[in-house]
Amino acid sequence: MDLLIKNGTVVNSNGRYKADVAVKSGKVVAVGIGLDPQGAEIVDATDLLVLPGGLDVHTHLELPVGDTLSADDYMTGTRAAACGGVTMVIDFVMQGNGQGLLEAVKGRDKLAAPKACVDYGFHVAITDLTDDILDEMESAVNMGVTSFKVFMTYAFGITDGVFYKVLRRSKDIGALVMVHAENHDVLEIRKAEFIAQGKTSAWYHYLSRPEFVESEADIRAIELAKSVGAPLYIVHLGCEDGMKAVEKARTEGYPIFAETCPHYLNFTCEVYKRPDGRNFVCSPPMKGQASQDALWLGIENGNIATVATDHCPFQTTEKDWGKDDFTKIPNGCMGIENLYPYLLSEANKGRISFERAVELCCANPAKLFGCAPQKGYIAPGSDADIVLYDPSKDFTISQKNMHSTIDYTIWEGVQLKGYPVRTYSKGALVYKDGEFVGKPGHGEFVKRNPVKRSGPAL
Amino acid sequence: MDLLIKNGTVVNSNGRYKADVAVKSGKVVAVGIGLDPQGAEIVDATDLLVLPGGLDVHTHLELPVGDTLSADDYMTGTRAAACGGVTMVIDFVMQGNGQGLLEAVKGRDKLAAPKACVDYGFHVAITDLTDDILDEMESAVNMGVTSFKVFMTYAFGITDGVFYKVLRRSKDIGALVMVHAENHDVLEIRKAEFIAQGKTSAWYHYLSRPEFVESEADIRAIELAKSVGAPLYIVHLGCEDGMKAVEKARTEGYPIFAETCPHYLNFTCEVYKRPDGRNFVCSPPMKGQASQDALWLGIENGNIATVATDHCPFQTTEKDWGKDDFTKIPNGCMGIENLYPYLLSEANKGRISFERAVELCCANPAKLFGCAPQKGYIAPGSDADIVLYDPSKDFTISQKNMHSTIDYTIWEGVQLKGYPVRTYSKGALVYKDGEFVGKPGHGEFVKRNPVKRSGPAL
Amino acid sequence: MDLLIKNGTVVNSNGRYKADVAVKSGKVVAVGIGLDPQGAEIVDATDLLVLPGGLDVHTHLELPVGDTLSADDYMTGTRAAACGGVTMVIDFVMQGNGQGLLEAVKGRDKLAAPKACVDYGFHVAITDLTDDILDEMESAVNMGVTSFKVFMTYAFGITDGVFYKVLRRSKDIGALVMVHAENHDVLEIRKAEFIAQGKTSAWYHYLSRPEFVESEADIRAIELAKSVGAPLYIVHLGCEDGMKAVEKARTEGYPIFAETCPHYLNFTCEVYKRPDGRNFVCSPPMKGQASQDALWLGIENGNIATVATDHCPFQTTEKDWGKDDFTKIPNGCMGIENLYPYLLSEANKGRISFERAVELCCANPAKLFGCAPQKGYIAPGSDADIVLYDPSKDFTISQKNMHSTIDYTIWEGVQLKGYPVRTYSKGALVYKDGEFVGKPGHGEFVKRNPVKRSGPAL
Amino acid sequence: MDLLIKNGTVVNSNGRYKADVAVKSGKVVAVGIGLDPQGAEIVDATDLLVLPGGLDVHTHLELPVGDTLSADDYMTGTRAAACGGVTMVIDFVMQGNGQGLLEAVKGRDKLAAPKACVDYGFHVAITDLTDDILDEMESAVNMGVTSFKVFMTYAFGITDGVFYKVLRRSKDIGALVMVHAENHDVLEIRKAEFIAQGKTSAWYHYLSRPEFVESEADIRAIELAKSVGAPLYIVHLGCEDGMKAVEKARTEGYPIFAETCPHYLNFTCEVYKRPDGRNFVCSPPMKGQASQDALWLGIENGNIATVATDHCPFQTTEKDWGKDDFTKIPNGCMGIENLYPYLLSEANKGRISFERAVELCCANPAKLFGCAPQKGYIAPGSDADIVLYDPSKDFTISQKNMHSTIDYTIWEGVQLKGYPVRTYSKGALVYKDGEFVGKPGHGEFVKRNPVKRSGPAL
Repeated sequence: MDLLIKNGTVVNSNGRYKADVAVKSGKVVAVGIGLDPQGAEIVDATDLLVLPGGLDVHTHLELPVGDTLSADDYMTGTRAAACGGVTMVIDFVMQGNGQGLLEAVKGRDKLAAPKACVDYGFHVAITDLTDDILDEMESAVNMGVTSFKVFMTYAFGITDGVFYKVLRRSKDIGALVMVHAENHDVLEIRKAEFIAQGKTSAWYHYLSRPEFVESEADIRAIELAKSVGAPLYIVHLGCEDGMKAVEKARTEGYPIFAETCPHYLNFTCEVYKRPDGRNFVCSPPMKGQASQDALWLGIENGNIATVATDHCPFQTTEKDWGKDDFTKIPNGCMGIENLYPYLLSEANKGRISFERAVELCCANPAKLFGCAPQKGYIAPGSDADIVLYDPSKDFTISQKNMHSTIDYTIWEGVQLKGYPVRTYSKGALVYKDGEFVGKPGHGEFVKRNPVKRSGPAL
Repeated sequence: MDLLIKNGTVVNSNGRYKADVAVKSGKVVAVGIGLDPQGAEIVDATDLLVLPGGLDVHTHLELPVGDTLSADDYMTGTRAAACGGVTMVIDFVMQGNGQGLLEAVKGRDKLAAPKACVDYGFHVAITDLTDDILDEMESAVNMGVTSFKVFMTYAFGITDGVFYKVLRRSKDIGALVMVHAENHDVLEIRKAEFIAQGKTSAWYHYLSRPEFVESEADIRAIELAKSVGAPLYIVHLGCEDGMKAVEKARTEGYPIFAETCPHYLNFTCEVYKRPDGRNFVCSPPMKGQASQDALWLGIENGNIATVATDHCPFQTTEKDWGKDDFTKIPNGCMGIENLYPYLLSEANKGRISFERAVELCCANPAKLFGCAPQKGYIAPGSDADIVLYDPSKDFTISQKNMHSTIDYTIWEGVQLKGYPVRTYSKGALVYKDGEFVGKPGHGEFVKRNPVKRSGPAL
Repeated sequence: MDLLIKNGTVVNSNGRYKADVAVKSGKVVAVGIGLDPQGAEIVDATDLLVLPGGLDVHTHLELPVGDTLSADDYMTGTRAAACGGVTMVIDFVMQGNGQGLLEAVKGRDKLAAPKACVDYGFHVAITDLTDDILDEMESAVNMGVTSFKVFMTYAFGITDGVFYKVLRRSKDIGALVMVHAENHDVLEIRKAEFIAQGKTSAWYHYLSRPEFVESEADIRAIELAKSVGAPLYIVHLGCEDGMKAVEKARTEGYPIFAETCPHYLNFTCEVYKRPDGRNFVCSPPMKGQASQDALWLGIENGNIATVATDHCPFQTTEKDWGKDDFTKIPNGCMGIENLYPYLLSEANKGRISFERAVELCCANPAKLFGCAPQKGYIAPGSDADIVLYDPSKDFTISQKNMHSTIDYTIWEGVQLKGYPVRTYSKGALVYKDGEFVGKPGHGEFVKRNPVKRSGPAL
Repeated sequence: MDLLIKNGTVVNSNGRYKADVAVKSGKVVAVGIGLDPQGAEIVDATDLLVLPGGLDVHTHLELPVGDTLSADDYMTGTRAAACGGVTMVIDFVMQGNGQGLLEAVKGRDKLAAPKACVDYGFHVAITDLTDDILDEMESAVNMGVTSFKVFMTYAFGITDGVFYKVLRRSKDIGALVMVHAENHDVLEIRKAEFIAQGKTSAWYHYLSRPEFVESEADIRAIELAKSVGAPLYIVHLGCEDGMKAVEKARTEGYPIFAETCPHYLNFTCEVYKRPDGRNFVCSPPMKGQASQDALWLGIENGNIATVATDHCPFQTTEKDWGKDDFTKIPNGCMGIENLYPYLLSEANKGRISFERAVELCCANPAKLFGCAPQKGYIAPGSDADIVLYDPSKDFTISQKNMHSTIDYTIWEGVQLKGYPVRTYSKGALVYKDGEFVGKPGHGEFVKRNPVKRSGPAL
């Protein structure tokens, strides 16, 4: 035994109990009462919660966008993750035009491997589908990349036909399709019209892609998935009618899974009226209060499966490119360090249970993306990815206490009740009392497994 | 350490992993990899699943009905339970006219304590509500009886007004109201008419209380609970429209919980046309195929919270009282020994996951009725109520291999894939390879805790 | 020909056209272009709408309540009706304890016949059901009383069983069951508690029977009707969830019909906070804004079938009985003279079409209650019940310009766009430019016909 | 007066009554009791129904398809219409690439004017949208073409963006957008795959565009219309989930209108297994029984607005092009002569009322397409488009008794209860007892009016 965390309250997605946690060679080896330390380092977790490390299954680190990159690279991004209790990220690889999927993944892995402070995996976004790529999808699954993303908008968005083919193929090979759902045609028309009318502020970013732009695409995506019987994972769900469509399909028994993001749970489109509104620009945008209420209801009634961040921040100077034209604002917000503390704080305040927070940020993403129970659990055999959480520690988010490279945060001033005090990644301490204490390259690629699903159960 | 179960696959409601389970003084003390036996008895569970013992939260043991008692008493009933992997039953106490709740519970506890082969608890059915009884409800909660049942039919059925008061009071004190939902007026009219028309066979039992008799009452019960914001647990849900009403309310965010029974999942109303149709007479009756399909969908989409048995069997000679008049058939079927093996077999056949079976029979009932994680979990600190399950063992249910006193079983001939090979109750072996090896009086009353719920999450 | 109305725009429920209307012996004999007057009286309707007279199918005239009667008798009530363009009322006969239905109807007819200023019919409320009464229902239908009402609350409210029997019987004989839907038990508990707590103002009338008190009963009534396949007419629907239940059942194909009242469309429960709040006390009470919005949506999407008044006013001194105890306020509001002008004004303002107003107040009630096309149409062979409506005439409702006996009106100050200028009842002018010009006894009992319905279509 | 139809029962969409109908100069001038013939021709309609002529608002006459034309030209098509009681057709004009809308309409009008046996109008299908065309839409409305069609499939199908723009523009100018809804991408993939697999029979026509291919597009079309607040008319709705989406949107208050066709009401996809299956090939194809049931429910619950034919037949030799490859079968079926008799026969058999049949085939299409009450009504001022219908006349449909040019009919052998015996078009007899007695060129272009709608009411 290398490490014994004593006297804490272990919280998994289905319950909690007082127990000691023994760690050896980066794995949890026992959970028990009064375990004998056998000479291991002892950490006292009295009054603390002992939680599985979180998973952020939606990140865009050092993503090329126009002439720049998203602000966090694999080092600073995973460093921030560790400091927010997240011990695994799954980042998006974008297939280039004519590029093979494996080639694309390997290229990114080369960047990530030396920098990653916590474990990581990759989804790959299919932007140029051919018959060869359909074949190669199985090879991607075999190398541990079991999830494919498609975009219904952007220059690299796909047609319904490509989407349909990707769904069918993914079903056969146990992969999960992820979709960015917005109606491309409609939002492009609206954008062009606003610009032509001189309506250029960040508020028009929202108005160019309001609720119905997202919900139509959510519904269409679900219909396509239903027609094929394929599982579908809707990323960054942000609108009421999309939420309702997910609820309906799941009640009918379809394997439809929804992810939302912390910023949709905490902010509404009103932020786009702020002077710094452009800092909140991401797609889909935050929506109205009714949508936020619907998302929280989905958190409560079980129809939201995961919360992840879509972490894709840009520096102030980059956001400023769109000062006079919202279409020039690079899209994306930060959240990788806020995800887990925010959800846990909401639990601590009583809105949800700690178990549900763990389910949303740990167990469910691990199950959906084929790495449970290696990740997402405090259990024998699981990786010793462990967060010690102090429910009595108050915390106010500020750019100054974050561990990203970004020169502001949309979360500035948000007050949390409770905060992580330690994070272990595979048994190694990587975060302690506000400081990052890990090192780049400690994180490794996680080979994930395919999963066949036929219903909404996780 | 008293006992070490080695090399098995531990299955809890949220996942599974290979691990050893250490037991001491009736409790699980550790779950881990390669645990040192320290001299304890070692049981090898290679190729076996190590499961939490099941809870049957709906039994009627030695229940006075007319001039007789339901066939299983607290000994034979809990013996059968043990042999079916069930390590806790919650039995119904009926408040007598003018009787206090505590008095009623204590009376039954005296009967149960010396006979119980596994742990037990009590719900109490309120049949005669006064202001004093409303006050006494809190005392019942304090003594560990945290759930109150009302009947919307039968001579001792309650009015909507009483139901409403019980819901409000229960909400305040963290108790859970359970309801038997059928429209009394309508079924009484239909019964009387059939008898008057000479339609006396068991088939008319079904026709006197078909789908709508139950669903109207389900819907009304939900409306009343919603109006109060109180949690509600619908026992033995058996019909499609009731299931849909539960799904709708839960999606809206209300704390509505549905229990169904194994016989609704395995049989339809067609059984009432069999020569032995009267043996299947229970209320509510089995319904049509559409209802069975809806219940399975509820199992799959998460809107069924628990499965329990409504175990209340009568001997053949008693069932025969109604040979020529279905209204004279004592109502009730057996299932206490079939519940958990049946659900696990369905899991083993691939219809649901083993985790979901454990959730339905262990974790969820324990959470709902305030005894988690003492019961329903394989976890440090939990009672060592453990089932070793052999997924490769085939089993055909027959009266001959059951451990109840009853001279037939409605489950005769049903084939299961996989079966329990051992049951431990608080660390003591009570069932092994087809034989009961426990003893009466081993089981103890479990004091349950109140739980405040505001949404559908468990 | 006795009368020729020339140059007007005839509006029926399905459309409008410019045409002359010829009347002879109390009937419309022709509708045409450039009809030859043949010596008849000519009335020029240039710029006027020529509308069918309205039906108010929900009135309580000279109804015994406690020690008093509702304020309008068959003379003043039908006089007010005529002045508001209503040319037929259907009044409620209450069956006395042990009384026969025909006896009850005949008793009331004796009162009404000499006083009625416009035609009238009767529904009969069943309060004491026996097998003899079930038999007598067919005799009532044969005498032209084709609709039976049941109350789910009040001292004379019926059980679910009685309701069920009345539904089945009515279906067989082509009668329509009307229901006052509120959960009696729950509202009685709430009333008693408020009074015990000293909460005695009119506001607590609303709080004692808020939305859910009505909607639960609406839903239950619909479930019972669906189980029997019987048509059902819900009177004075006032709440959102009831409206949704009606919409759902109709979409499923069931013959469920909803009536709402003008006061639910124009006022919300906020009125109960007014100093004269008790004047607005009726049951069910006005509800919140969401309910009013839902009712208007039902008007617009076609799921409200009729609008009628529940006209049952009491004088100020009588309302004052409940000054210090809302339970002592006699229940009921006025509306008989406001119904049709209010709906037409809403049409004139553009919220609905004139055709829809005519459908709600004329064609639909006539069809539902078995007197179409004698009533509710401008068509050859129909009774010459005709309203000339001036869309350019503004009108402010005041007690002073009403023709009832009541010393106030809840509609005081409400401004209408457009108003009737003439009403003809069976060819006789009964109202002209603000004055009643008809006479008591002119109105006759209308023998209505049974109608068998199997779906929601009218 | 030119013509007096005496003693019949006039049926309009909202009711029926016995009355004479007087006709002068092609118009109905009076409807009345015992009208004086004043020397006019008298036709005795005793025991007959006097109905408005039907509208077939969905025809494709002499439509260029590949190297051929649809089989009926404006003469034979409108001749068949007249013989089936249809007195107005609205035919589709296809905009050519780069062609102006007015130019396209005028080109077709030149073909139609000399041949039309009954009145006609045009919708224009937008296939090539530019800013100029958006402007020209108002000119089209001004010339009486108030409805624009878009296709979501076929080579000339439009994108979501074009659809969105057409909806917005139409809303502003009071026009109605009609949509052919099928998911183009998915059906093209399925077609190509079946052909590649050698699955070439007509059955694969159905399987290449099954229920979900249509319903996804129905739902998307509705979402786009809702986002804009524009009215939408879905042509040839044929599937259950599309029907449900229409019902939901209408209940929510949106102006969504659905047309179905007689062949969806009478046939299911089983016909594609017949040896002559290719004769039934049209798009969307007939679907399964559940869809047919859903459409009939829509007929009954009011959510189907119209029935029209999509009349677009091809000769046997043309259908044979696809004997070995379903993709080569020209798409389209006949129905122009069957529409109204079929619906009336269903009314006569009791499935719906005659009024509802008239509403679906006469009043509703006339209202929706801006020609009410000129068309669709028996009323003063309306065109004297009148059908005398004998409810006691049995009729078996056969190619031999049809008046089209086509050498077979999919309706062969279908038995009707009741049949038209005379058709008048603008006062002129055009059909009598099985024979066409009108003449080409009698029919005229009907200038239709724009209509602004904000809700589902017609």
